[in-house]
Amino acid sequence: MPLNPPIAIVMGSQSDWATMCHAAETLDQLEIAYEARIVSAHRTPDRMYDFAKSAADDGFKTIIAGAGGAAHLPGMIAALTHLPVFGVPVESRTMKGLDSLYSIVQMPAGIPVGTLAIGKAGATNAALLAAAVLGISDEEARKNLIAYRENRTAQVKEFPVDDE
Amino acid sequence: MPLNPPIAIVMGSQSDWATMCHAAETLDQLEIAYEARIVSAHRTPDRMYDFAKSAADDGFKTIIAGAGGAAHLPGMIAALTHLPVFGVPVESRTMKGLDSLYSIVQMPAGIPVGTLAIGKAGATNAALLAAAVLGISDEEARKNLIAYRENRTAQVKEFPVDDE
Amino acid sequence: MPLNPPIAIVMGSQSDWATMCHAAETLDQLEIAYEARIVSAHRTPDRMYDFAKSAADDGFKTIIAGAGGAAHLPGMIAALTHLPVFGVPVESRTMKGLDSLYSIVQMPAGIPVGTLAIGKAGATNAALLAAAVLGISDEEARKNLIAYRENRTAQVKEFPVDDE
Amino acid sequence: MPLNPPIAIVMGSQSDWATMCHAAETLDQLEIAYEARIVSAHRTPDRMYDFAKSAADDGFKTIIAGAGGAAHLPGMIAALTHLPVFGVPVESRTMKGLDSLYSIVQMPAGIPVGTLAIGKAGATNAALLAAAVLGISDEEARKNLIAYRENRTAQVKEFPVDDE
Amino acid sequence: MPLNPPIAIVMGSQSDWATMCHAAETLDQLEIAYEARIVSAHRTPDRMYDFAKSAADDGFKTIIAGAGGAAHLPGMIAALTHLPVFGVPVESRTMKGLDSLYSIVQMPAGIPVGTLAIGKAGATNAALLAAAVLGISDEEARKNLIAYRENRTAQVKEFPVDDE
Amino acid sequence: MPLNPPIAIVMGSQSDWATMCHAAETLDQLEIAYEARIVSAHRTPDRMYDFAKSAADDGFKTIIAGAGGAAHLPGMIAALTHLPVFGVPVESRTMKGLDSLYSIVQMPAGIPVGTLAIGKAGATNAALLAAAVLGISDEEARKNLIAYRENRTAQVKEFPVDDE
Amino acid sequence: MPLNPPIAIVMGSQSDWATMCHAAETLDQLEIAYEARIVSAHRTPDRMYDFAKSAADDGFKTIIAGAGGAAHLPGMIAALTHLPVFGVPVESRTMKGLDSLYSIVQMPAGIPVGTLAIGKAGATNAALLAAAVLGISDEEARKNLIAYRENRTAQVKEFPVDDE
Amino acid sequence: MPLNPPIAIVMGSQSDWATMCHAAETLDQLEIAYEARIVSAHRTPDRMYDFAKSAADDGFKTIIAGAGGAAHLPGMIAALTHLPVFGVPVESRTMKGLDSLYSIVQMPAGIPVGTLAIGKAGATNAALLAAAVLGISDEEARKNLIAYRENRTAQVKEFPVDDE
Repeated sequence: MPLNPPIAIVMGSQSDWATMCHAAETLDQLEIAYEARIVSAHRTPDRMYDFAKSAADDGFKTIIAGAGGAAHLPGMIAALTHLPVFGVPVESRTMKGLDSLYSIVQMPAGIPVGTLAIGKAGATNAALLAAAVLGISDEEARKNLIAYRENRTAQVKEFPVDDE
Repeated sequence: MPLNPPIAIVMGSQSDWATMCHAAETLDQLEIAYEARIVSAHRTPDRMYDFAKSAADDGFKTIIAGAGGAAHLPGMIAALTHLPVFGVPVESRTMKGLDSLYSIVQMPAGIPVGTLAIGKAGATNAALLAAAVLGISDEEARKNLIAYRENRTAQVKEFPVDDE
Repeated sequence: MPLNPPIAIVMGSQSDWATMCHAAETLDQLEIAYEARIVSAHRTPDRMYDFAKSAADDGFKTIIAGAGGAAHLPGMIAALTHLPVFGVPVESRTMKGLDSLYSIVQMPAGIPVGTLAIGKAGATNAALLAAAVLGISDEEARKNLIAYRENRTAQVKEFPVDDE
Repeated sequence: MPLNPPIAIVMGSQSDWATMCHAAETLDQLEIAYEARIVSAHRTPDRMYDFAKSAADDGFKTIIAGAGGAAHLPGMIAALTHLPVFGVPVESRTMKGLDSLYSIVQMPAGIPVGTLAIGKAGATNAALLAAAVLGISDEEARKNLIAYRENRTAQVKEFPVDDE
Repeated sequence: MPLNPPIAIVMGSQSDWATMCHAAETLDQLEIAYEARIVSAHRTPDRMYDFAKSAADDGFKTIIAGAGGAAHLPGMIAALTHLPVFGVPVESRTMKGLDSLYSIVQMPAGIPVGTLAIGKAGATNAALLAAAVLGISDEEARKNLIAYRENRTAQVKEFPVDDE
Repeated sequence: MPLNPPIAIVMGSQSDWATMCHAAETLDQLEIAYEARIVSAHRTPDRMYDFAKSAADDGFKTIIAGAGGAAHLPGMIAALTHLPVFGVPVESRTMKGLDSLYSIVQMPAGIPVGTLAIGKAGATNAALLAAAVLGISDEEARKNLIAYRENRTAQVKEFPVDDE
Repeated sequence: MPLNPPIAIVMGSQSDWATMCHAAETLDQLEIAYEARIVSAHRTPDRMYDFAKSAADDGFKTIIAGAGGAAHLPGMIAALTHLPVFGVPVESRTMKGLDSLYSIVQMPAGIPVGTLAIGKAGATNAALLAAAVLGISDEEARKNLIAYRENRTAQVKEFPVDDE
Repeated sequence: MPLNPPIAIVMGSQSDWATMCHAAETLDQLEIAYEARIVSAHRTPDRMYDFAKSAADDGFKTIIAGAGGAAHLPGMIAALTHLPVFGVPVESRTMKGLDSLYSIVQMPAGIPVGTLAIGKAGATNAALLAAAVLGISDEEARKNLIAYRENRTAQVKEFPVDDE
């Protein structure tokens, strides 16, 4: 019987956490449980294989994967599981995440990765997209997502103010 | 009681169908029902509003949206529904789909679009990702997806041959 | 009888005001009235629809719209009104406004957005272009624009100086 | 008393006409008069100066300028007249119009060029934007533009068809 | 006792062979043995793991890996073996191999892939680089490489001719 | 009888001087006289015309022109004089000078601008190239250039040192 | 006593001649003598050294160098001679000459290459720029250049024609 | 009898050492000897020729070359020796190393440069790749490389931590 939460957040290195923590925080706000792990495609390929191959059996429903540079993690996990995988291109130093974006989004036919925007916005949105996906069959997730969105809409002011 | 199939495939113009038909064909192979419609964010904004706002009530579970150039369709639909939206950047003439990709993937925090690769591969993968998403709560979709993937794996030859 | 000023300046978020205030300041110098509002295509799509659909009836003559990232605001407003729309790509963090530029300028045939440069220069120029447009039928706007330009020309020194 | 039509379409070379003729055809459909001329910033700078400096006195209301590569024509005309100038980046051979786009859109603060999409779509849209601009004070232009747009909206089919 | 040739040429799909056959042909000319195999990181991840993990024990000395799009094959093989890996970005349809290049070359510190040019030139050069690497300890490979290069130098004519 | 020095350094604005002063300093080191002026293609088109059209008669031999963004100055001067023109792309804020580079280098057949690197290196090199050009018929310029280069070669250390 | 013509046109391979012949044809029209040679930086580095080091003593005044891809020829020749060197980026297959452009124009401070546009336009302009450079001290070259330019200006028609 | 270490690290200027020192430090950790030298293709072409032409005879086995901008050093050294050459694109100021990358990786068929990532990661990886190459025939190098990699794998934590 799986003990795992529905969402796994994986990332290639500790330094990606500064970006991926925004996915975690958003899931916290949506009251959706998750597990966050460091799984490096390049430095810990065995750990990645084990994680991805058993993810479905372990009870995960959706995987959020963030990586930078030659960002192979989301695509390799997608190759090893049939669960939906959402990829977050982490902003890289010299190419500002353009390398990360191309490495994640340009997957060949057969193995999809639903790719979000580069950086913090992408991490936040990966959580929201995972919530939408869970929300198809989980009414509470759906309600929390709708409330989150209505709340954000309500916060948009009518007029810009100076001295922000 | 919703009469609609679980997947909607929308696109900005008739010319996008040459790309998006690969999503339809893939869903056919997976035996997942869908409806394909032309919904232009720019030429038929009212049709887009009506479609997106009622999509959840109409029984759709997931929306696949393809568009090219300043591709606003996926993001605008995502702004108008809480259903998961997957975007396919259609290859544009002068920028080869780079404009489509940036317009779809770089969504601000709050409104996610899970973006696939530019062109045919992306359309095929949008269908596979939608199947994975449905597969969380729909065992038949999941089984069909797993069979589809095993079949593709089995088709990869060991050695390259000339005269292909 | 419309009570609105001839120019509307709209932007996707409060943070865009740091850029778009340069449009406002330029219109102040040209003594042309305007209204500045936050209208998010993604977070407040209903507000956007209402604003754009009634803009002509409300007495606006020209709309200046600024947005960043997957910048859908200028194009969507242009889809919902026949008034001229001028778009300002706001500089985004990771792509430095290149995503904003492509999302605004690459509109399909049928719905134009007159696009200005990325960032502050573009915001200033959107105001000047709006003044030129009004100046076709408004002699005071035209005179003020000509004076503004002559003044700027007069300020260009002959020789560069160090220690600027 | 000016004998000129309200719109001038200028382009850097005869070869640009294959793109810019779409602006002319669109103005024909909108029943708005125009004059089309070849004015090269680089090969005929004197002609360009004469044209641009006298354009307002000659009765032109708006100028559409198309150019490719290091596309200086729109910006130089904008520097020499206070009339609104709309620029069309013509698709260049090696850079596919990216050089044209950057050369036209990235104007410094002070001299705006309202830039349209690269190529044919941009030429068509320059005509539509010019019509919108004239439409502020010319009811017939406005009516024709609205009718043109409604007609295009009506032509968007509901469902994609194969064998297009 | 290993029965394998010193060089393995692997590629992500049969279609990559049109590019990678130039590596094979160059090794033929250098009289260096190789084995060419299709190993897809995404469609056959298990085959890739098995191949890469046993490559050193199987007697391979150097691996040439070609892939296109989100090209994960060279980097993943490099993560699974300590043998030198040389990557060839195969030209992709929409991005012309720029996505392949970034996905291969931008590897994080720790796991190197020596990357060659996009397409045919890169495949040829991967073979020459592998020969140079073998040539450090294999005098025949070194001699053949030197002869190959001298031959190419001798073929460069002094003067260009028309009607080529 | 011309009273002008052989080299004119022109730039689009005072802010370009931070880059173009490196051309001036290099000419100082080469003991070649020059005049530096602000000539804006966009804000002072008349000044530009007067300058460029009379430059040959005024005794200038070569013109160095620096500009940023939609950098029209070098190309427009080249259109108005038969003197050799060397262009320096000044680093722009959002596009880091890529827009400047494309606007300067991609001149159409007929009007050349010899383009140098973006920024300070380009400004320095424009001076060295102008010296090489003068050096064809001016032995002192040639000698000074050769000495300058030999001196720079001599300054290249053999081994890198830490704590630079 | 040098027997060489004033201009050398060098290129990296026979295939570059399809581009560089436009430099030769333009010099023919200007009645300026030249010598065209194949000098590969990569395949014939010794030939390149010999050519560049003796170019000034051999009587050449200016060198036009064309190359594609990692285009090292113009910069290496400039490193080996004090003569002015003009570089033509030859259009490459996968990057359309963008790699050639960056490799030629982005020279470090100290060694300039005056870079022209990618491809045929650049080759033509390299010849015109070389003529302008010779024209400083050679009245016939100057006269021919001025006549060439006046002729081109005269050929620009006033109005575009269909059926070109 | 060669007295040189197996690896040469060369770079275009002292400022490249801030990047290339990471190659040196990595070789230190692997206990592989090297010599680091400044060899500028542009400022010291003779030194470069002498170094590259005698590198094999001097006992070097592999060359690591770092350079920025129009980075000709790796490719020119590869043209002058049959030893394997690994190139490191040093991050440049305005193009963030994209110019360096293209100048190094896009070598024509015949002369390979195994190219690593831009900047520090690339420098580190050049050392690791050189170790892998030596490791083919040098058991100690191979053992040290394997230990280095195992050590890095062991350092990857399971879970991300805040406050890094």
